[in-house]
Amino acid sequence: MRITVLGAGAWGTALARMLACRGHDVTLWDYFPATLEAIARTGQNERYLPGIELPTGLRLEPDAGRAVDGAELVVVASVSRAFRTVTQCLERFTGVVVTVTKGIEYETGLTMSGVLRETAPRARVVALSGPSLALEVARGVPTAVVAAGKDAEATRQVQMLFHGPTFRVYSSSDLLGVELGGALKNVFAIGAGVCDGLGFGDNSKAALVTRAIAEMRRLGVACGARAETFSGLSGIGDLMVTCFSKLSRNRQFGERLGRGESVDQILATMTAVAEGYPTARSAHALARRLEVETPIIDQVYAMLYEGKDVRQTVQDLLSRESKPED
Amino acid sequence: MRITVLGAGAWGTALARMLACRGHDVTLWDYFPATLEAIARTGQNERYLPGIELPTGLRLEPDAGRAVDGAELVVVASVSRAFRTVTQCLERFTGVVVTVTKGIEYETGLTMSGVLRETAPRARVVALSGPSLALEVARGVPTAVVAAGKDAEATRQVQMLFHGPTFRVYSSSDLLGVELGGALKNVFAIGAGVCDGLGFGDNSKAALVTRAIAEMRRLGVACGARAETFSGLSGIGDLMVTCFSKLSRNRQFGERLGRGESVDQILATMTAVAEGYPTARSAHALARRLEVETPIIDQVYAMLYEGKDVRQTVQDLLSRESKPED
Repeated sequence: MRITVLGAGAWGTALARMLACRGHDVTLWDYFPATLEAIARTGQNERYLPGIELPTGLRLEPDAGRAVDGAELVVVASVSRAFRTVTQCLERFTGVVVTVTKGIEYETGLTMSGVLRETAPRARVVALSGPSLALEVARGVPTAVVAAGKDAEATRQVQMLFHGPTFRVYSSSDLLGVELGGALKNVFAIGAGVCDGLGFGDNSKAALVTRAIAEMRRLGVACGARAETFSGLSGIGDLMVTCFSKLSRNRQFGERLGRGESVDQILATMTAVAEGYPTARSAHALARRLEVETPIIDQVYAMLYEGKDVRQTVQDLLSRESKPED
Repeated sequence: MRITVLGAGAWGTALARMLACRGHDVTLWDYFPATLEAIARTGQNERYLPGIELPTGLRLEPDAGRAVDGAELVVVASVSRAFRTVTQCLERFTGVVVTVTKGIEYETGLTMSGVLRETAPRARVVALSGPSLALEVARGVPTAVVAAGKDAEATRQVQMLFHGPTFRVYSSSDLLGVELGGALKNVFAIGAGVCDGLGFGDNSKAALVTRAIAEMRRLGVACGARAETFSGLSGIGDLMVTCFSKLSRNRQFGERLGRGESVDQILATMTAVAEGYPTARSAHALARRLEVETPIIDQVYAMLYEGKDVRQTVQDLLSRESKPED
């Protein structure tokens, strides 16, 4: 199959590699031609996926229009803030578009599939999400994710395309729920990372993440997603890995914040984008609009955008008044 | 208040210390007089809670009858296999008994509160459970747990007794659900540890733990517990910390198994009991009796009791046929 992957970050590169290794005709595009040139030169994406050899058959194309021309399926793996711009090239595309970008557009409150409805109105949209650290997938670590879409046939097609011996793909029809789980967990992971950075230990983090699950579900349901989706791989599963894994960028972001670095310092020195940073703002706005109680998102937002003291924030979070669980 | 703690393992010692530091009159008993003698000599429980000073006011009593005589509240923190024997001394006790032991009795399928109904029929029973690594609690790391009981007044009393600035206690009336979450998570943590020991990474573990939550809920509901209890601190919360924390004994047990040690080797050299080992057998029997599908418990049981190859087991678990999430 002719497949184009838009975005040569860690996840886009790992997926392009996986599909190319299975014999598909894969083209990889990135906004920065230098990224593609470096891949061409070294046979690796040293910046985002160091140590992983990329197949020689992988085509690199710096022009987005040419990259998607003739593609049967397009995977969008750009950062969320560039998603609308990047997907302009799909205006007339009629095939399947797989979004693996996790975020919520601030101005509109839309998930990436919502943006695609506007930028790629004729495409059949499927989201792929779940606990899938890119480096582990590239190393062949057994991984399980979810393909979600309203178009059952396209969803099934994506499920079969990506499914392999160490990459298992389940399916769901709750597109919004799967996307919201993936987006919101990055915000909670920053909070969990702050706990780590402050030296608060695993008990505190477990208490925080348990509440995060309930908060994620509450906001998701208010948006129109199904409650049970948040109990699956794209909800709890992804939340756990992002909050507990050393490899998680968003958790690392929070950890550095907890250790005393400023937001500006962290943003200026991170190699890859921590999507939790913009998503905290979008999720905070979304929750206000829908009048949903989201104490953790609010506190993460306050730390990131209002300069609230991190220790005070976490103490506020952990010392909320006890109330019966039932 | 006159409080007696039965069992000077890590958790019993940490709780006895916490209550004594708050000015209660606390007596600590253990089955092994040598453990108490070592505490008297060193002012620490070096074996189970190294580096933590114990308050001088803590009374140590090697005779169980004398230890509970005159107590207003008794905390039972023994290992599960000794729970029935240890609690014989509570036959005529009419106060509140707090069980913090996590397990299921193999012969009867009873949780510890169920055993107490037989051994301490006149006591008012409350279970205390949640993500609470003993060493972290002893170090004052913010922690949140659940007190659960059918007797609302006794539950409230326990909640207020234990509640403090860094130890927050929520309440629940689903005694069975809270106890089952605490017991079953140890079995899943062994499975998660095996993933770690085999070098399978965080994606695999997240997929396994996501399924474990569903399995825990399914078995718990079949036993008569409430589904939502498993989404709280004593379910998901405790499961996460036990599956992801370096400090978790049950995860460590699995990790050593995954690295190639035999069950006998591990059992012979562990300092503290990994409750997941006996609970795997009890939970497996319980699930068979109730005809509940428990693939993870079954596979952990097979590794621990039937000598099944660990790599094969985890591969079997991770490669079960995909089916839609909904």
